[in-house]
Amino acid sequence: MSEIGLFEAMYTARAIRRFRPDPVPDELVAKVVEAGTMAPSATNAQPWAFVVVRDGDVKRFVQERYAETFHAAYARARDMIGRGASGNPKRLLDAATHLADHLHEVPVLLFCCVTRYGAEHPGREHQPRYDSIFPAVQNVLLACRGVGLGACLTTLHTVHEREIHDRLGIPAEWASPAMIPIGWPADRHGPIRRRPVVEIIHLERW
Amino acid sequence: MSEIGLFEAMYTARAIRRFRPDPVPDELVAKVVEAGTMAPSATNAQPWAFVVVRDGDVKRFVQERYAETFHAAYARARDMIGRGASGNPKRLLDAATHLADHLHEVPVLLFCCVTRYGAEHPGREHQPRYDSIFPAVQNVLLACRGVGLGACLTTLHTVHEREIHDRLGIPAEWASPAMIPIGWPADRHGPIRRRPVVEIIHLERW
Repeated sequence: MSEIGLFEAMYTARAIRRFRPDPVPDELVAKVVEAGTMAPSATNAQPWAFVVVRDGDVKRFVQERYAETFHAAYARARDMIGRGASGNPKRLLDAATHLADHLHEVPVLLFCCVTRYGAEHPGREHQPRYDSIFPAVQNVLLACRGVGLGACLTTLHTVHEREIHDRLGIPAEWASPAMIPIGWPADRHGPIRRRPVVEIIHLERW
Repeated sequence: MSEIGLFEAMYTARAIRRFRPDPVPDELVAKVVEAGTMAPSATNAQPWAFVVVRDGDVKRFVQERYAETFHAAYARARDMIGRGASGNPKRLLDAATHLADHLHEVPVLLFCCVTRYGAEHPGREHQPRYDSIFPAVQNVLLACRGVGLGACLTTLHTVHEREIHDRLGIPAEWASPAMIPIGWPADRHGPIRRRPVVEIIHLERW
């Protein structure tokens, strides 16, 4: 397989929120997770773990809670998305709504877990080690793009984290700041539009 | 220029902590930051900004505070790094010490800024929107690898965030959860070693 270029992947890794039902092989899931673990983590502690959920009942359990949060936040989300400076707010909201209503039909839900700060980090105690999981999450998203899978970054399940972790058997000292639905894309990958870089770079001083 | 492959970049983007003094062109900094902005953010709000610091006095100001935090945490860091399951703890610690002592000599310090949660997110109020900046940070790191620049993810400056933000003119409602030193690598990029993926993947249940 000829490999996709780095910049091509970064510039076309659209968030995919509609999926075909075809199953995703275990080897591909392992491949994108392994790519995730190539990301850096504080002191290279690699304080992460990944739970691959395919079971229909468990996905439904997650979907019900995710959708509840999504629809409760619908009006606010619409406002926030409307404020976005680029892209198509209505299309994003339609796709996000579709995802919330069909999450249980996505072949794989990947829970990206990380340990929490302990007492040695006053002010951050019990917070997830965000800086040691989101770089890995981005690698997983890019790796999915690289092998032709669709994926997107979601966090709404964290509102029901305790219940969902009970169901998945995730230990109390772990958090799951990100959940990545993965499947073969029904939407298309393609060029990403963002605010121009000159608007968000400051030289020397803000 | 023939583009580096996605997986080749992810699997060889070692943290670079020793740099040559040669300057880094503005265009390359803009290129890696633009790649950063291709990452996802919550509701596509793109709540990020990047401050590019080259000024020697400012870099020294940052270095003094960074080094203070680093050396105060030295003993603990050594313990934590020693616990890492892969890689070479001594080499990592030597390189991290070199970086702390020479941060002001790195051509570019890139402060990756993001807004904080507001009152509409009880329990997270005032916390940085970590999930909307660390994916971009990882894209910047990969993009640096892609163009041959060295870079690494650091967070120790956050201990002195208020002072450093005053110096850089960063508004109070912004956080800078990551700072990326960027320059031409004196260390080499190369294969990354991590814990085997089978040890950190759980199927269906933890």
